[in-house]
Amino acid sequence: MPKSTTNPWAKYGLSLLCFLLLSNSVPAQEQSLPNFIIIFADDLGYGDLGTFGHPTIKTPHLDRMAHEGQKWTNFYAGASVCTPSRAALLTGRLPVRSGMASNKHRVLFPDSKHGLPSREITLAEQLKKAGYSTACIGKWHLGHKEQYLPTNNGFDYYFGIPYSNDMDRVQGEAYKNYWDRTNDSIKSEHFNVPLLRNTQIIERPADQNTITTRYSNEAVSYIKKNKNRPFFIYLAHNLPHVPLFASQAFLGKSERGLYGDVLEEIDHGVGKILDTLKEEGLDKNTIVVFTSDNGPWLPFKLNGGSAGPLKAGKGTTWEGGMREPTIFWGPSKIRPGVITDLGSTMDLFTTFSKMAGVEIPNDRIIDGVDLSGTLFRHESSPRKSMFYYRGTELYAVRMENYKAHFITQGAYGQFGKRQEHDPPLLYHLNHDPSENFNIAPAHPEVLATIDELVKKHRSKLIRGKDQLADREQ
Amino acid sequence: MPKSTTNPWAKYGLSLLCFLLLSNSVPAQEQSLPNFIIIFADDLGYGDLGTFGHPTIKTPHLDRMAHEGQKWTNFYAGASVCTPSRAALLTGRLPVRSGMASNKHRVLFPDSKHGLPSREITLAEQLKKAGYSTACIGKWHLGHKEQYLPTNNGFDYYFGIPYSNDMDRVQGEAYKNYWDRTNDSIKSEHFNVPLLRNTQIIERPADQNTITTRYSNEAVSYIKKNKNRPFFIYLAHNLPHVPLFASQAFLGKSERGLYGDVLEEIDHGVGKILDTLKEEGLDKNTIVVFTSDNGPWLPFKLNGGSAGPLKAGKGTTWEGGMREPTIFWGPSKIRPGVITDLGSTMDLFTTFSKMAGVEIPNDRIIDGVDLSGTLFRHESSPRKSMFYYRGTELYAVRMENYKAHFITQGAYGQFGKRQEHDPPLLYHLNHDPSENFNIAPAHPEVLATIDELVKKHRSKLIRGKDQLADREQ
Repeated sequence: MPKSTTNPWAKYGLSLLCFLLLSNSVPAQEQSLPNFIIIFADDLGYGDLGTFGHPTIKTPHLDRMAHEGQKWTNFYAGASVCTPSRAALLTGRLPVRSGMASNKHRVLFPDSKHGLPSREITLAEQLKKAGYSTACIGKWHLGHKEQYLPTNNGFDYYFGIPYSNDMDRVQGEAYKNYWDRTNDSIKSEHFNVPLLRNTQIIERPADQNTITTRYSNEAVSYIKKNKNRPFFIYLAHNLPHVPLFASQAFLGKSERGLYGDVLEEIDHGVGKILDTLKEEGLDKNTIVVFTSDNGPWLPFKLNGGSAGPLKAGKGTTWEGGMREPTIFWGPSKIRPGVITDLGSTMDLFTTFSKMAGVEIPNDRIIDGVDLSGTLFRHESSPRKSMFYYRGTELYAVRMENYKAHFITQGAYGQFGKRQEHDPPLLYHLNHDPSENFNIAPAHPEVLATIDELVKKHRSKLIRGKDQLADREQ
Repeated sequence: MPKSTTNPWAKYGLSLLCFLLLSNSVPAQEQSLPNFIIIFADDLGYGDLGTFGHPTIKTPHLDRMAHEGQKWTNFYAGASVCTPSRAALLTGRLPVRSGMASNKHRVLFPDSKHGLPSREITLAEQLKKAGYSTACIGKWHLGHKEQYLPTNNGFDYYFGIPYSNDMDRVQGEAYKNYWDRTNDSIKSEHFNVPLLRNTQIIERPADQNTITTRYSNEAVSYIKKNKNRPFFIYLAHNLPHVPLFASQAFLGKSERGLYGDVLEEIDHGVGKILDTLKEEGLDKNTIVVFTSDNGPWLPFKLNGGSAGPLKAGKGTTWEGGMREPTIFWGPSKIRPGVITDLGSTMDLFTTFSKMAGVEIPNDRIIDGVDLSGTLFRHESSPRKSMFYYRGTELYAVRMENYKAHFITQGAYGQFGKRQEHDPPLLYHLNHDPSENFNIAPAHPEVLATIDELVKKHRSKLIRGKDQLADREQ
């Protein structure tokens, strides 16, 4: 059983009963398993929330979540673009393992043939084993054909769009303009994106103007309907990915302009969800996480976000591409504070599985680690490294505070061409979060240790078959 | 009396009695005038506090101040370097008016002949009129000769260094290295800076290792000794200006490295001051402001700070040079929130004078405005514009959300050479805080309005005689 050594959690194969009897992760007074809500933004920049330093985007509900909970400042998505990042979150695995990363196409498209392979185990499938109700609300982007949809991947319920909100373009001209859009020349109906309930299209094109609030409302309804058993809601907003749309009540309200309107509508929904949890008496037994799939889409200028102090954005393996503004909230469970330890969206798979008493699969490598010691007791995070893949190529590695870039490359026409680095570029990310000062010459010993780490990683890497490569056309 | 028209506050020339009877600015239960504490950092970057988005510098006390009070995200120093910025804060006037700005020397030096002219009225002198005890603790930098020292400018008490902590260099070699310093090769004794109590040198060189905590302790002692009458403390830390030093208890503790150690020691002092106010029952009647003199000194790399999402730093009229992370705190007085309206350190002169019932001088232009409506009731800030001078030249103007650059220029070898712009560069700062997207071509009407504003400003500008130009050598 050599694989079990690669999965440190396998040895904890506790039954649900043992977990409840032995664990001090869940306060004793709580009788039931905790509910989980993941609120996942799309293309949100590291610097776009108030509590992460944006000067004019007002996010009072997220700020409150951070104040009452934990603000994680070194938390990573599993990839720098949409499809692989979502696969990483839901499977707890680097997308290169599942085949949900590709050097041919960055993401899935409406004419892509495949999606998340059925052998992959999603967090929803994990939680189903412990009797959870599970809902996916929002953008999926792991395959739009029926066999790939959320309802075939562990979710009891699905309400959302199957891929990005800028796909299925019906007006090429309008789309072209939107890189510089500062007016309302782009309409929701220029994108023939379908809105699904479970596996049925219920609206096409989806009315994107109201979609954010509709997603939040769906989450509120789901909480109310499912409050008598543990639930898991994966609320994946399809905004602030361009094209940007906001409901009438938010349009023109933010001092940041349209991008701010969109975020403030998402923030408002977060407030409604937290309020609902309190009203229903579920707040003490629910953990809410807010994060994003990748960094800001910078070529869209004012319609893209800001990575704040971080370099570059979406599509790159610079920090701006993969470090996400992340907040954990759960009164009486999550110990408030600012957490600078490492975490990743992949860790949600392992952390929530453990909290629900579900065994971690031991027939495959799971990259997620259990963050509950950090969440509940401010213990050191077990995550000590992060692998930054672009497609199926390893571009960079973070080992504790150090990050080595083997390859750097901009994206979408910004931040330069592909460059290979030997020796790698080396940055001390806690000292130098902006990746300004290469310290490789002074630290050959760090590079040597990272080299060992990479060798070990590669020796165990089984690459999944590329699921993104094949398209109808 | 044409000058009175330039001072909108003159008409409010209320006596102290009238103020107390009529104003709703001070809650009725408060019998005494409010105490004021200004905590002024040196070369702090906009992005260097936790609540302003730094990933690894931990500032729990300042974060708490912001949560309990007001976080101002569009708050400006009066200049981008030390001496003129301090003159602006204390006089409520642009330094070009007082003569504390110069095109010959950026700041005062140990061999400078002059200092703040005696005809200038400081905030301390204002508050003395209402019977305040006044203390200046920390760096002065408005003239080191006796007639220019704090005790001749309205302060009852002074404890601090008279100019920057990198002056009076005794080891040129060591100083040269410190642009790249990552070790302890720079010692406090390499800088023969004197420490004064009132007008007497009590230590030379000042032991900079312990100076931050000594300043905080002086403030705590002053609060305790002067709690029976209203007091004003101007606590101007001389750090995180390079060279960086921290007490043994903080050295090596921050994940950000030495710069973080320094800030965390300042933050710790903030906590002690807030705690003292609570212990002494003064918290409900004291307003504490935290801000900085100018942006981060970027060529010092890891020993300099971070402007977060803002462009450039110290010495420039880009936002990174003059926008400061600012927090107002005063339980029961300051209404909590995030304030995106404009404010400036110059406004402290006017705001605090008004709160103390002291008339604003009407024989000169005062640039400060009264922010109390915003502080107490979230009213719109009366500040609608900001003039960005470099030396005595007007480089840029902010008018509400728009900023026009007539001249741009980097500083200390970074961010390029002087460039004049006709038409000016134009940025919408609330949409585009990083000043990335020039929108001048689309907004000639905004440029025209700014042009009118500048003409009006210039028509009333009386330039003070340059006080920085003359040096002994």
